[in-house]
Parts: sequence; structure tokens; C-alpha cells
Amino acid sequence: MNEFGFIRDRLAALSRGFPGALDLKDDAALLSCGPDEELVLTQDMLVAGVHFLDFDPADLVARKALRVNLSDLAAMGAMPVAVMASVAWPREGGEALREDWVKGLAEDLSGAELPLIGGDTTVTPGPWTMTITAIGTTPKGAALKRSGARPGDLVCVTGTIGDAGLGLKLLRGEIDLSDGSRDFVATRYRVPAPRLEMGLALRRTATACIDVSDGLLADAGHVAAASGVGLTLNLGDLPRSDAVAEWLEGEADLDAALVALASAGDDYELLFTLPPGAFDAAYMAALQSGVRLTQIGEVTEGEGVTALGMTGQTLSIESGGFTHF
Amino acid sequence: MNEFGFIRDRLAALSRGFPGALDLKDDAALLSCGPDEELVLTQDMLVAGVHFLDFDPADLVARKALRVNLSDLAAMGAMPVAVMASVAWPREGGEALREDWVKGLAEDLSGAELPLIGGDTTVTPGPWTMTITAIGTTPKGAALKRSGARPGDLVCVTGTIGDAGLGLKLLRGEIDLSDGSRDFVATRYRVPAPRLEMGLALRRTATACIDVSDGLLADAGHVAAASGVGLTLNLGDLPRSDAVAEWLEGEADLDAALVALASAGDDYELLFTLPPGAFDAAYMAALQSGVRLTQIGEVTEGEGVTALGMTGQTLSIESGGFTHF
Repeated sequence: MNEFGFIRDRLAALSRGFPGALDLKDDAALLSCGPDEELVLTQDMLVAGVHFLDFDPADLVARKALRVNLSDLAAMGAMPVAVMASVAWPREGGEALREDWVKGLAEDLSGAELPLIGGDTTVTPGPWTMTITAIGTTPKGAALKRSGARPGDLVCVTGTIGDAGLGLKLLRGEIDLSDGSRDFVATRYRVPAPRLEMGLALRRTATACIDVSDGLLADAGHVAAASGVGLTLNLGDLPRSDAVAEWLEGEADLDAALVALASAGDDYELLFTLPPGAFDAAYMAALQSGVRLTQIGEVTEGEGVTALGMTGQTLSIESGGFTHF
Repeated sequence: MNEFGFIRDRLAALSRGFPGALDLKDDAALLSCGPDEELVLTQDMLVAGVHFLDFDPADLVARKALRVNLSDLAAMGAMPVAVMASVAWPREGGEALREDWVKGLAEDLSGAELPLIGGDTTVTPGPWTMTITAIGTTPKGAALKRSGARPGDLVCVTGTIGDAGLGLKLLRGEIDLSDGSRDFVATRYRVPAPRLEMGLALRRTATACIDVSDGLLADAGHVAAASGVGLTLNLGDLPRSDAVAEWLEGEADLDAALVALASAGDDYELLFTLPPGAFDAAYMAALQSGVRLTQIGEVTEGEGVTALGMTGQTLSIESGGFTHF
């Protein structure tokens, strides 16, 4: 099946009848937005061997590529409406990858009731590479940003932190865990759960929001810089999964282990700030959407991130988190 | 300079103060559209060694990557409003590439008064790869499509055809030309001119439109298939630059040479259909925007593309044009 056949016979169905996708037959896609809405656009590029493991199943790669973009929409409090995908397939073995990739993407698009409206297909002599663009909407002026945190706000996080980092270590053979924990952390790394419902609920209350992709400490640093404030985080309060608790038992230096958990990326939880009076409503919203919500610190005057250890002492955090170059 | 410094010190300026770009500091960009408008979105992925030559100057690569996307907007009759860019830089030599690439992109964005509103930066162990997304607007329902050609319509094309294909052959050392022709065809390959003004003018008159990227015959085939009609093209009427005329003089089989010109891609001219009564207005619009306009055929009942040679005989066209896989 050549490129045009692939688009017609495999990708076109993923447009799910969305009129502006024009059956993926045209030069571009069409999208309307309501008079009181803004569109929210985000784009992530994923390279085999850099953003996912060469041996990760292609259907899970597709789902992760979509989900990390939806996570960015969640962090802006946006409701997703459409997706674009551009993929450079390796010349060798591309056909099998394509079938599995489409299967994974179709599954997640169908689950989220989202159309694929455009993109590009090509080949590469290098590693398999894809760019996914997610487009969402918010009421005008309602988008969450990184820049609104104010001294006195609480710093909160959804879900549990550090799971995906352990998943990556496990899949690389650097650590081992019990059976149940193995599956859990591998799935947390490979198929993150974008916190879309929580993002919508936070529109009314959060002063700043970001998704945890570079690592909790680094992403907290982005909020601190954009807001012109300091963030003090109690790493002992980091919400831990059973798998993280199991891993921590084997670590001699608990504070160092907590810093490692807070420096690992890929959790795709929401880190946000909100006034203390808004905590209860956010906690209820989290309960309703089936996700844990934990206060892990507070916003202060000043700048940067201060990380406190188990006994309240300030920890040295050297790295600014993951950076590609 | 690391990834975050690069975004802050180099890319952020390319947002040109566009409010929804949020200084490229946030998880996503914001974009409004008017109540009577539609957004038009297109995305192309370019891989070094596949879509451009490894030794192409990085500033020209940036400009081409942008321009091929703007060409897709032109083909839809859209007015560009914003751009996103995701780039995977090679681990070796990335820094020099980045500086030149930003310079080229800045030049074209400035010339077109367009903001960069988002994207991604990463690295790759493979060839330099980028995905550019161009976003435009049209009045609701006014977008040009590939699907409206009707029997009796004229088939027209802007500019001249085959230049970029000769440029590629020249840069690969497969042909040689006189000094003036060399510069001309190399520039036509490396820095295409998206026919945006012409696309806007055609909104009112063209029944179908596409940009010539895969090759004139292949792109005409896309229009025929989408419209459910046939396209008959007189290859002897193909508008030829002086460089193409020079090349043709050295070719023994003129019909075969015309098929080669009509099969080469990358010209980024507009191929469109319109009722005969609309030709004069389109011709005047082309004159005003400084671009040639030539009728090269007509729309018929039936299907597919029929290519006629210098003496009016039907030519055999084997290939469906360039396909990546």
C-alpha cells in the first residue's frame, strides 16, 4: 500500500466524519470556533530512541504521542476538538509499524471522540519520528496559564508522582519491581492519562497550571519563572503509588530518592496553584473525576523552587530537569 | 545555549508580540477566529535528505519549510495568520544549524508579518527533521477545495512548471545549465513562492484548486479524483521559464521531456479549474499580483488525467507522481 492508499484506506477513517477534515483529501483542514471561544493549539514531536523506546509497541507509541498533547490541553483547561498527525516512517519495517500505529491512534481517538483532521506522511532514513498537534477550545480569556501564581497560593498536583520515571528505568532494565508494580509503572510511562476533566474543573479556580512532563521540579520552576514567584515544595508530601513506595523501601537515602522522583519526567499529571479557599472545590472535582489531589507546597515571594526533604531541610537540586540540548 | 535558552533568546522574538503566543512560555497557544470565519490548518514534515538536500543552507531550509505550508493555504484560498514549528535537531552540529534556521525563518515571518505561536524543539540521532504547521482563515464556506471541478471548466496554472525539478537535478549534479538559469532553478527549488494573493483572488471564481507539489500530473490527478471528472492537459501549453526552454533544447524527445517536467514536484504553483467566463477576471488578478496565468487544458466527463503531446497525441503517463512509500 503506497502513501495515498494508506491515507485513503487507513487514516481517512480516523477523521470520524468530521466535515472540516475533508476526508483527508485536501491541502488543509477547516475548523470553526464559536464567537466566545478561543482555540488552544499545542504540538509535540516524538523521536524513537529519544521520547520512546525503540522496542515500545507502535500502538502504544501512537497513544502516548496523542496523550502527551492532550495533557498540554488539559494544562490549559481546554476541551480537545481535533488532532493533526505528521509521521516520518522508517524505510525498513514501516508497513508493520503503520498498521499498529493506526490501530492505537484509532482506539484513543475513538475513546476521546476526536477526529484526525490532517497532517503529513513521509519516510525517513533515520528513526521513526512523529509530530502530533492537538487543538482544543476554551471560553475566551478562560485558558489556564503558567503565569498567574501568587504568594499564599497552594501548590497541588494530581495523581501520583515518579511512576513514569520508574517505568522508564524498569523498561531499560535498570531496576526491578514486583509483578504488579512492573505493569503499573510501565503503563504509566507508555500510556499516560491526560487530566482533561480536572483541567476543565480548574478553569474557575487555578491561578497557574502546567503538566508534569520535564519533571516535577523543572515544571514547578517554569511556573515560578512565568509567575515571578517562588514555589516551596515538601517532597515528603509527594503523592506516591504503591510501586513508588516499594521502590523507596530499597533506597538508602530517602531525600535523594525523593529528588529523583521529582526530577523524572513523563508523569503527565497537573501541577497547579490556587488560593487556599479554592482547595475544597478542587478536591471535590478531583474526587468526581476519579483522580487524587494532593497539596505539596505553597507559593512564596521570591523566585525559583525550594525543595524540602523529609525533616523539612532544604535539599540541593542541581539539575533544571530534562533538556534536549 | 540549552533548549530553554534557545526558545527564550531566539524563538520567542519570532512570536512578534502576538498575544496568543504567550511569548512561547506556555503549554499551548491561543487563537481566536471571527464568527464568520473558518480556520484553515495544514502541516508538512520535512526530513533532511528526503525533502531537502543535506547541504542546503539551513536558512533556506527554514524558508522552504514555511513556504510549502503557506502554499497549501494559498491552494485553499486562505489568508495566513500564524505558524507553529517543531524541529528535531541533529546531535552533532545542531547549534550552527539552529542559528541559520532561525535567521531564515525570522526573515520570512517578518516579510509575511506572521507570528510563530508554538511548537516543539528536540534532538534526533537521525537526520534533521521539522514539522511546520500553517494556520489561516477564510470566510465560512469560501475555502477552495480539490473537489469542485466540473466538465467544461478550464484547467489553469500559475507561474512556470518544471523549474524546481530542474533545480533539484542541477543541485544533484545530474544536469548543467547556463549561469543565469542555474541560479533561477536552484532558487525555484529552494525558496518557492507561495501564490497567496492569487489564492485569495480565486476564492470567488475557481471551482477546484491544488498546489503543485507532487508533480503537475499527479496533482491534476488528485483534482480529477476528488471532483469525479477527467482532466485533459496539453503539455505543449505548459508555461516554460527561459531555463526550462534552455533545457528542452538539449532534449531529443520533446514529449518525454514535457512529461518529465509535468512529473517533477516542488514548483508550488497553483493548479486550478474555473468556468470559461471567469478566465479574464482571473487573468487580471494574476497580472495584478505579478504572476503568469496559463490555460493548459480542460475538464471533461470521465476520470483521470489525459496528457496530450506536441502534436495532440495522447501520451502514456506511467507514474502517479512522487510517493514516499
